Amino acid sequence: MNTQVTLPRQQRKQFDHRRYRRFAAIDKADRRWPGQHIEAAPQWCSVDLRDGNQALIEPMTVEQKQHMWQLLLNLGFKQIEVGFPAASQPDYDFVRWLIEHNQIPDDVTIQVLVQARDELIERTFEALQGARKAIVHLYNSTSPVQRERVFCLDKDGIVDIARRGAHKVKTEAQRYPATEWVFQYSPESFSTTEIDFAVEICNTVIDVWQPKVDDKVIINLPATVEASLPNAFADMVEYFCDHVQHRDCLVISIHTHNDRGCAVAAAELALLAGADRIEGTLLGNGERTGNMDIVTMAMNLYSQGIDPELDFSNPDDVIATVEACTRIKTHPRHPWVGELVYTAFSGSHQDAIRKCLTQQDDDEPWDVAYLPIDPQDLGRSYQSVIRVNSQSGKGGAAYLLEQQLGIELPRWLQVELAAPVQQLAERQQGELEAQQVLKLFRQHFMPRDGRFHLAGYQVDRQGSRHHIQASISDEHDMLLIHGHGNGAISAFADAMHKATGIDIQVLQFEEQATEHGSDAAAMAMVQASVRGTRACGVAKDQDTLAASLQAILRAVNSAVAQ
Amino acid sequence: MNTQVTLPRQQRKQFDHRRYRRFAAIDKADRRWPGQHIEAAPQWCSVDLRDGNQALIEPMTVEQKQHMWQLLLNLGFKQIEVGFPAASQPDYDFVRWLIEHNQIPDDVTIQVLVQARDELIERTFEALQGARKAIVHLYNSTSPVQRERVFCLDKDGIVDIARRGAHKVKTEAQRYPATEWVFQYSPESFSTTEIDFAVEICNTVIDVWQPKVDDKVIINLPATVEASLPNAFADMVEYFCDHVQHRDCLVISIHTHNDRGCAVAAAELALLAGADRIEGTLLGNGERTGNMDIVTMAMNLYSQGIDPELDFSNPDDVIATVEACTRIKTHPRHPWVGELVYTAFSGSHQDAIRKCLTQQDDDEPWDVAYLPIDPQDLGRSYQSVIRVNSQSGKGGAAYLLEQQLGIELPRWLQVELAAPVQQLAERQQGELEAQQVLKLFRQHFMPRDGRFHLAGYQVDRQGSRHHIQASISDEHDMLLIHGHGNGAISAFADAMHKATGIDIQVLQFEEQATEHGSDAAAMAMVQASVRGTRACGVAKDQDTLAASLQAILRAVNSAVAQ
Repeated sequence: MNTQVTLPRQQRKQFDHRRYRRFAAIDKADRRWPGQHIEAAPQWCSVDLRDGNQALIEPMTVEQKQHMWQLLLNLGFKQIEVGFPAASQPDYDFVRWLIEHNQIPDDVTIQVLVQARDELIERTFEALQGARKAIVHLYNSTSPVQRERVFCLDKDGIVDIARRGAHKVKTEAQRYPATEWVFQYSPESFSTTEIDFAVEICNTVIDVWQPKVDDKVIINLPATVEASLPNAFADMVEYFCDHVQHRDCLVISIHTHNDRGCAVAAAELALLAGADRIEGTLLGNGERTGNMDIVTMAMNLYSQGIDPELDFSNPDDVIATVEACTRIKTHPRHPWVGELVYTAFSGSHQDAIRKCLTQQDDDEPWDVAYLPIDPQDLGRSYQSVIRVNSQSGKGGAAYLLEQQLGIELPRWLQVELAAPVQQLAERQQGELEAQQVLKLFRQHFMPRDGRFHLAGYQVDRQGSRHHIQASISDEHDMLLIHGHGNGAISAFADAMHKATGIDIQVLQFEEQATEHGSDAAAMAMVQASVRGTRACGVAKDQDTLAASLQAILRAVNSAVAQ
Repeated sequence: MNTQVTLPRQQRKQFDHRRYRRFAAIDKADRRWPGQHIEAAPQWCSVDLRDGNQALIEPMTVEQKQHMWQLLLNLGFKQIEVGFPAASQPDYDFVRWLIEHNQIPDDVTIQVLVQARDELIERTFEALQGARKAIVHLYNSTSPVQRERVFCLDKDGIVDIARRGAHKVKTEAQRYPATEWVFQYSPESFSTTEIDFAVEICNTVIDVWQPKVDDKVIINLPATVEASLPNAFADMVEYFCDHVQHRDCLVISIHTHNDRGCAVAAAELALLAGADRIEGTLLGNGERTGNMDIVTMAMNLYSQGIDPELDFSNPDDVIATVEACTRIKTHPRHPWVGELVYTAFSGSHQDAIRKCLTQQDDDEPWDVAYLPIDPQDLGRSYQSVIRVNSQSGKGGAAYLLEQQLGIELPRWLQVELAAPVQQLAERQQGELEAQQVLKLFRQHFMPRDGRFHLAGYQVDRQGSRHHIQASISDEHDMLLIHGHGNGAISAFADAMHKATGIDIQVLQFEEQATEHGSDAAAMAMVQASVRGTRACGVAKDQDTLAASLQAILRAVNSAVAQ
């Protein structure tokens, strides 16, 4: 399988598959995993604050890490990798903040990563001083390319790094007996390491750590780079579980990446193959193509009647925090939570869904064509999008509005507009005129009435902190409100919250110029969660910020009127 | 496995996994697929113009369909589903355009979808009149929920629909003997249909169509909604292949969706299980969570030394066309082609990659840690992103620039800036000052010298067509250039091409206000492919369009100077 293909230089094309080798899958005739079923959720470990954070162009600020930490607790994670404190001062400081400010609930264990090097291990234990319980996650690189090209060591040399690292971890742990220590070892790049060597190096570490049935060691098997079909990875995991010593004293953990688009599949099949624990991130943030997405895998369990032991009932919160921390937008087709996944465009799908929904009883198992779960479980609603003008080939209310307003409607607003458009289309049994769509749009997103209106505002910026002072009419009163934030919009939400008690989270925001040149007008479009209710507002103004604030108030007006 | 869980209404929480049932996986002890390997590319069928198009809020225009069609031909697709002509007039018109304007190369076969209803089948054959060769893809719904809740028919009733549809297809085909017909049947929602019923209904259709070894019928097995682990799907496919009649006269085709994030894995495992053909879309566009992504699966083959039989050497072209047609942005972590997948942030990854690259010979198989393929195969380059200011916790050149320029740098521009920043950081062996980063940014993206400069412009808009007239200095000459386009920017690119022969494709564009209020200035940032070379340009102006055009010219200046 693993024949070397040598190409003379002159033959080489740019796009030439012959430069690459077939993955050397193990030959495992006695596999049992394909006959297994997942019966319960695995132990979950979030690595958002470590692997996720490490893969960002701008690492998270202290404030962002605190938000992420809180979200992870709220979702129900009991094991959270919080950083690589020996390699990064911000990670060190964050670990200290968690410990010194008593941020770690009794049933939650923090985990930190460290390379098998003495001075890094010492620094790691310093960082963890005072923790009630902690997982020290030791790793070294084990694959042939790492051994030969990066470390220039033979197998014995690599095993020696692991052995000495494991000893050092054990010795350091003895210096801090007040903490309950859990040890974890990763043969880094397990996915491209010869399987017998992976077993050998893990057995060496296990020899040092001497785990017991009631004092287990975690052995984590990473697909640092996804290198094979998920079934070949499952074969490796099953083989490993069959051959590693003291299996009953181990927690076998899996850490997959998505280089071949199969990180979730590989993790699921690894569970069948005997793994107990899954490391991953929310929405799959992480190096290169990302880590295994815990949201997808947990919802896969949920949708089959298995308790995921994580609470994803409010994915909008997850998306908002992850996007704020990573600055990476969630794809509209992201499994379970993307904005388009409960939207049906095809007439035959819409028809089937409507028929099923009318027959679905509240107290029987869910059974609706094209909707694997009830979108309401996630605070979403099923949207059927009618193409107002499908015969034209460039269909839809959005297109008509684009003609009328001179702007390109963002998709999330198109989806919000779909329901009222459909209702009207059904009432009048035919195609809508552009003016009707425009009227609907104005009624729903740009109403002139409502509880709050913007009278004026003033913004100061000091460094990255914005302070806003605004005057708002609240029915017959005039409020002078004040707030702070990282931007004028967050400062305004803060001011509204302080003055009225109404909690506003901006979920989507877009602003577009509607004219060009010196008399440019801006159209601001906002989707916000207002006291937990989703609402949209749109406003136009010569001034871009005024348009934004008015749009927010219209979203608030719409939510408070519901 | 398939026990009904009935919950009294009052017990129901909103987020309650007990509403859902376990997938009823078949019990297949004799499976052979986990021991198989993929040895060659499958037959590929693109369904971008049908399933992909059907899932868009704004379906593709005729012009967009033509671009997509051309792209699919360029990539090397030999089977392309082009629409559902009996259900959609634009699809009908597009099929007629393909046939009447001789757009279909001799080695390419178009495919059209049709439900098993007489009048739709008749209209479908009308649409195909004059085609040299065509695949007629017949389907009806077969799953229990479709039978019971949507069609209100028993199994016999559903089989009858398929049988009559197959007869009608055969009869209609005989009316058009000049065309070489290929028949395809899908038991729609195969993934949730009882496996023996799926075999039964397909056998019924096969009885009608009487395929031969040299005149095969395509049986397509859709995971219309992904409902199980990919290994359970592979079991179903293997069982199906073992039990369907006349297997040697069939092409077994697979059509997966991504509801559980495993569409690629399911398709790959289905190939192991005996399938011959894969339907999917570019970058996974399609209903809800999308179809199987052919880019990922093809590159998975490529990276293992298997000829994918599709040419993805220029993924930027694929991304540009798909984004223009779908208005959905490619995720930055999309396998193989996302903008972040060849970027290393971690110091240890950067170090390992550098060591491997220096040892990688041109004429030996690729073997570099953390880079499964050479990014240059896809016209990309490996980027190591240095965090200029990592100790601050909010690191990076981008952060410094944000402070200096008052704008948030888009990620693609941050990545472009990384290389010069790293070079300078390595030269001076230490952290960079904000002013140094700003100077680098200006040198690279806002140079005042260069071949072309904007003197003035005038834009007219007629409907959605823009005409631009601009005066451009070209070294010592002044050019008056003219062009048309859907927007001012595309009109400007057209004008430049007409006047200078330089081909410009704008890949990324972003514009931000740098000040608020009446003296707002705009900063435009552009990444363009100029004669096939990627280059970026940035410009600031009081006028938003002037800033855009200057930014484009700076990208052109940078590319033509290389």
